[in-house]
Amino acid sequence: MVFGTVAYDDVETPSGSRTRQLGGSAAYFAVAASYFTDVAIVSVVGQDFDQSDLELFHKHGIDTSGIEIGEGATFHWSGRYLDDLNTAETLETHLNVLVGYQPTVEPHHRSPKHLFLANGDPSLQRFTLDALANRPRLVAGDTMNHWILENRDELVETISRLDVAIINETEALMLSNEPGIARAAAAILDFGCEYVVIKRGEYGAAMFGRDTLFATPAYPLAEVVDPTGAGDSFAGGFVGYLATVDDIDEDSLRNAVIAGSTLASMTVQDFGLGRLANLDRDILRARFADFAELTSYPAQHDPLLEFANGF
Amino acid sequence: MVFGTVAYDDVETPSGSRTRQLGGSAAYFAVAASYFTDVAIVSVVGQDFDQSDLELFHKHGIDTSGIEIGEGATFHWSGRYLDDLNTAETLETHLNVLVGYQPTVEPHHRSPKHLFLANGDPSLQRFTLDALANRPRLVAGDTMNHWILENRDELVETISRLDVAIINETEALMLSNEPGIARAAAAILDFGCEYVVIKRGEYGAAMFGRDTLFATPAYPLAEVVDPTGAGDSFAGGFVGYLATVDDIDEDSLRNAVIAGSTLASMTVQDFGLGRLANLDRDILRARFADFAELTSYPAQHDPLLEFANGF
Repeated sequence: MVFGTVAYDDVETPSGSRTRQLGGSAAYFAVAASYFTDVAIVSVVGQDFDQSDLELFHKHGIDTSGIEIGEGATFHWSGRYLDDLNTAETLETHLNVLVGYQPTVEPHHRSPKHLFLANGDPSLQRFTLDALANRPRLVAGDTMNHWILENRDELVETISRLDVAIINETEALMLSNEPGIARAAAAILDFGCEYVVIKRGEYGAAMFGRDTLFATPAYPLAEVVDPTGAGDSFAGGFVGYLATVDDIDEDSLRNAVIAGSTLASMTVQDFGLGRLANLDRDILRARFADFAELTSYPAQHDPLLEFANGF
Repeated sequence: MVFGTVAYDDVETPSGSRTRQLGGSAAYFAVAASYFTDVAIVSVVGQDFDQSDLELFHKHGIDTSGIEIGEGATFHWSGRYLDDLNTAETLETHLNVLVGYQPTVEPHHRSPKHLFLANGDPSLQRFTLDALANRPRLVAGDTMNHWILENRDELVETISRLDVAIINETEALMLSNEPGIARAAAAILDFGCEYVVIKRGEYGAAMFGRDTLFATPAYPLAEVVDPTGAGDSFAGGFVGYLATVDDIDEDSLRNAVIAGSTLASMTVQDFGLGRLANLDRDILRARFADFAELTSYPAQHDPLLEFANGF
């Protein structure tokens, strides 16, 4: 289950522009995770929300019964990516139905096995967690600069209740006030979560546990069309993968980082959900294999066996 | 053998500052490579060059007979790293003995097995290559923004004669006029070299062949003291490693990228050559092992074996 936004986005990138593109953190997360497991969305949309967009979710087997229809228009974000595809410039944010929204967690949604609290008000993230009948097997969550600046204490309290915090590099540095990801991750682990996954855009991702460290580059793509939703697709691949394993342990968490990277690498290859919502298992398996090939190197002879100069 | 600079640097980083610190591309390369193989430097220093600095090279078994002593002072670079440790701000560059310098390749230096042409005037890089009696088993080279802007045609000609171009990400993008490393690398391969290794600072490195692709994150360090020389240390580890293998092939090149990353990760942990020049095989082996642990993930069950929703 994911608690997050469903939105209509206007985006402009070096590849072109789109208006009223289906998006939002919960939408990207849910579609990415749907390749691995059943997903339910808890969110709100406006009266303008298109039936065809609900059908896209249904085609992916996504439970939309937790998407309320509120008064007014669907949350709308408008932004552009200029030369640096890692950073969006927000042009407009219209909260619309999100104003005053308090999630309703229906009885049939109170025992999810896995929960992702997408970027949003940290007190509402915690409200959703508290509304559950049982602690899920895994609780992961994201945040963004706005909450770090405006609501840091609430945010730290929410992070303390996560198993895995999944956040962008710039936000990890801002949240921790540290200059590099190793120290930033240590500071965030001190808030109380078990793992911190730092998303680095085109540079990949790094996962820090208390005694472990895993990192992967992103897949170098010839063309990035639209980075919107890459981070939430990462989270969807990450949590969705873990829903398929018997044990959530260091090994499966490392594979989950690769699964997240795989799904994110698909999202950025088209506008919005254009590619993410149209994958099949052969395409996904091929990209998983590409990732394995990307980072693997064979164990070879020990080059230090005979130092040339007697060290 | 390396053709490059030996310098005295003044550097300022968030960790402190140093003056008259032994540096230069050939110095970092040679010390890094010395852990794997015998190294000779072709360079020039001024009459102010300290005997103790020559002794540091000799302690590493480095052949300094190709270091001429020219008229005037040793090449001097002064720079600082502010918040972004990936980018140096150059404060002063005093070419000193480099003005009008033309390398002399002595007869006993005309058959190196491996050659690294460190960042420098591309016509002098080619002059050095042409002075050899035989084509080395491997020729690698680096460059920087100055030569891309001022001497691009000469540079492209030099790159066409390399086996491996090893350059920074920003310079790869500038040289190719492409927005991402995948296309930049393709453009640089089209110049005629066999492999392009793109150095990404704290984000690691990626190696592109005509049909192959390898990438690694950098090792996330809790503290980066001084990034100066990291790129040349990378090159030293890369070429030095390849000097130890029977076959230079995709597998050994991948290991060479890890060796380069290992040596670079050591350099940045102290000012100048402070750490790089004081390693031993146990320290190096431990960091190699840390790298393997950093990026490896076990093959697990196929999470796509049973799609939840019939894709």
